[in-house]
Amino acid sequence: MKSLVIGGCGFIGSHIVDALLSSGRSVVVFDRQPERYRSPLQQVDYIYGDFKNPMAITEALIDVDVVYHTVSSTFPNTANLDPISDVQDNLIATLQLLNLIRDIGIKRIIFLSSGGTVYGPPEVTPTPENHPLRPINSYGIVKATIEHYLLMYQNLYDLSPVSIRASNPYGERQGHLGVQGVVSTFLNQIIKGNDIEVWGDGTAVRDYLYVADLARACVLASESNYSGPVNIGSGNGETLNSIIDILRIVTKKDFNVVYKPSRQIDVRKSVLDISRAESNFDWSTTIDLVDGVSRTWNWLNKINNDENEVN
Amino acid sequence: MKSLVIGGCGFIGSHIVDALLSSGRSVVVFDRQPERYRSPLQQVDYIYGDFKNPMAITEALIDVDVVYHTVSSTFPNTANLDPISDVQDNLIATLQLLNLIRDIGIKRIIFLSSGGTVYGPPEVTPTPENHPLRPINSYGIVKATIEHYLLMYQNLYDLSPVSIRASNPYGERQGHLGVQGVVSTFLNQIIKGNDIEVWGDGTAVRDYLYVADLARACVLASESNYSGPVNIGSGNGETLNSIIDILRIVTKKDFNVVYKPSRQIDVRKSVLDISRAESNFDWSTTIDLVDGVSRTWNWLNKINNDENEVN
Repeated sequence: MKSLVIGGCGFIGSHIVDALLSSGRSVVVFDRQPERYRSPLQQVDYIYGDFKNPMAITEALIDVDVVYHTVSSTFPNTANLDPISDVQDNLIATLQLLNLIRDIGIKRIIFLSSGGTVYGPPEVTPTPENHPLRPINSYGIVKATIEHYLLMYQNLYDLSPVSIRASNPYGERQGHLGVQGVVSTFLNQIIKGNDIEVWGDGTAVRDYLYVADLARACVLASESNYSGPVNIGSGNGETLNSIIDILRIVTKKDFNVVYKPSRQIDVRKSVLDISRAESNFDWSTTIDLVDGVSRTWNWLNKINNDENEVN
Repeated sequence: MKSLVIGGCGFIGSHIVDALLSSGRSVVVFDRQPERYRSPLQQVDYIYGDFKNPMAITEALIDVDVVYHTVSSTFPNTANLDPISDVQDNLIATLQLLNLIRDIGIKRIIFLSSGGTVYGPPEVTPTPENHPLRPINSYGIVKATIEHYLLMYQNLYDLSPVSIRASNPYGERQGHLGVQGVVSTFLNQIIKGNDIEVWGDGTAVRDYLYVADLARACVLASESNYSGPVNIGSGNGETLNSIIDILRIVTKKDFNVVYKPSRQIDVRKSVLDISRAESNFDWSTTIDLVDGVSRTWNWLNKINNDENEVN
């Protein structure tokens, strides 16, 4: 039997592929196009196609017993621009996938949800899974809606889903052009010698998680008996300003920080209660922020050097 | 200025039209087709078209200051059969409407949500508005998702929405072929001399609300300064068996009750806390169950006689 990683050429998906290979799993990847920063892996079967086209994905589901769904056509910062496309490309495409795996008889699906957006402004931090879902942006609304449908399909059709409510992942192979995480975006600015732009006063708190720790949690989740939502984060909150301090330590570079008016739609503080994952999956984070940022910095320097050599 | 009732030829929509006319409002109705049980009202402007087609609805929005959105292509009992269509026909069509009224500059929208399904199995009854939304069927999932988008559009674009979380409405002009409410369905079986079929043992509890009381609440909501979700119900729970007792009293008919295995997906008990509506809208119910069932019974007998005269 095989594990299918939908979106397996993307940032988080490619790390799930690595974690699966480390566990000796047979892996199929479905994605639109090859990985951007690595050559195709010899041990992996790649099938390229459009996630919105259920016919394209059927071939990838042959002999699969676990599906990892990591595809999103939008980012938290961009989805509000076109909620209709967000719903069509992510919610409806996911419902098509659920119907397919129900009809084929695949039970286990690990869905990459979003611990930073499904709760909306949290009433308590660290935020536990039973906190109400009150998302305030389209990205979080669509993730929460997919979670509701996963539970409905569990009740109606015996699906066994896990919704991974990931905090703010960062690490190698994350996009760094401004729409994904701040760590990669800021490191990329530092390499280029640019200023760093911070929305707000830098006191917004997030739960930063090294991507390989997240990927390992996804694989452990699939191997457990657990179904339902589960937070995956560091469990600790860091201000943007403390992240910037770590960037100075790791990069040993001098750079300016430009503070810009905060965006109203941002949640002030997001930290996840990760006790459910720790007790159900025998999982905990292994890479701390300084270590994770160093790895990301080394990787960014490497691809930057490689690009310069090519040019 | 005018009030637009989308779905104004339907069960609840047509009662909102009546309530608006009673308040001296100028009314436009947008719906697929004329009312089934009444001739078009002379005071009302009717525009017929498909809610899923944003171009069709644009004409109906001219000079409108309040939009009542009462359209649903699905019922709580049927939406699970095809969640993709449920999302396309209701969620996406509603997002198209929200974009339109945002672009035109209409601020006030009264959305008919569902107090019986958005909460899922309630942790507490009567259930207040701040109870988590954990819908377990597609109908409730789509309603909850639309509510999240309404709040997002309020934050981003100054929309002023009210989500009316209606309990179980019943009354004149409700469909009575089995997919809508039990009161009309049961009364229709009694008229025909058939048995009544009950799913489960008849102890499931619901909050039954006479439709004219609901319609009046929608109009009062639009006239208030309130925005956000609000429960509209009787605030009282009745078992199905006690409803059947009332049907015996009102109809003075003898009929058999056939109990069938309960459907797993049904919520056991649903009763709404209506204190928010009472304090914000100076509203309360005026028609009790015996009175409301009598009115519905008289109406059903009348349309039954009219049909027999025609045939």
